Amino acid sequence: MPSLFTRIINGEIPCHKVHEDDAHLAFLDIRPISQGHTLVVPKVEVDYIFDLDENQLAALMAFARQTAVKIKKVISCQRIGIMVAGLEVAHAHVHLVPILSTGDLTFAKARPASSQELEIVAQKIRAA
Amino acid sequence: MPSLFTRIINGEIPCHKVHEDDAHLAFLDIRPISQGHTLVVPKVEVDYIFDLDENQLAALMAFARQTAVKIKKVISCQRIGIMVAGLEVAHAHVHLVPILSTGDLTFAKARPASSQELEIVAQKIRAA
Repeated sequence: MPSLFTRIINGEIPCHKVHEDDAHLAFLDIRPISQGHTLVVPKVEVDYIFDLDENQLAALMAFARQTAVKIKKVISCQRIGIMVAGLEVAHAHVHLVPILSTGDLTFAKARPASSQELEIVAQKIRAA
Repeated sequence: MPSLFTRIINGEIPCHKVHEDDAHLAFLDIRPISQGHTLVVPKVEVDYIFDLDENQLAALMAFARQTAVKIKKVISCQRIGIMVAGLEVAHAHVHLVPILSTGDLTFAKARPASSQELEIVAQKIRAA
């Protein structure tokens, strides 16, 4: 059974894509902690981020950086924070979360957003 | 003025070291979110993690992985979570946080620990 993220990567489930390359996909979290909250995933289905090999981990972080730079260009924030918990979907993923303060970096602040709102944000980031 | 972490790296301020190589240091957070909560820092003083160059970022994550493997060996948890906020000390640092659930990954759970407690945990991780 492919992971939720593999099904998104394969186009079986839609997403609000913000960035992509051969080995990675970045798309908006549908329960954003803040506007622009993005999930970065490797296309290879590996459960735990630290089970990626050294090259895969390096490539994932380089892609996460590219994505963070795009988000920062269009979303007003202090920093793009990073979170990796990885207990809910068994496919490694990095949360990129625009934050104004350290206290913003918590899943307790996650709220559902409408598909329309998300698509407006995704378009802005894609164009950045 | 060197950063707090540069002063720790230089040995001017003590820390509960858990792992080190030529370019990185890992030591316990003195306000741990959970037992074993560790800070991983590059010895080069760069404020924002995404301002490290691609090789430095890859090396930092490879070292973070080594450190996470050591922590996981001795601290009972589901996963080693990752957080990067970076608004409080202007020297890039990765928080490695042993978690049982996604909700554990929040600075709201940080509590001061005694130097004695921390040193016991640090010794265990160093020896792992």
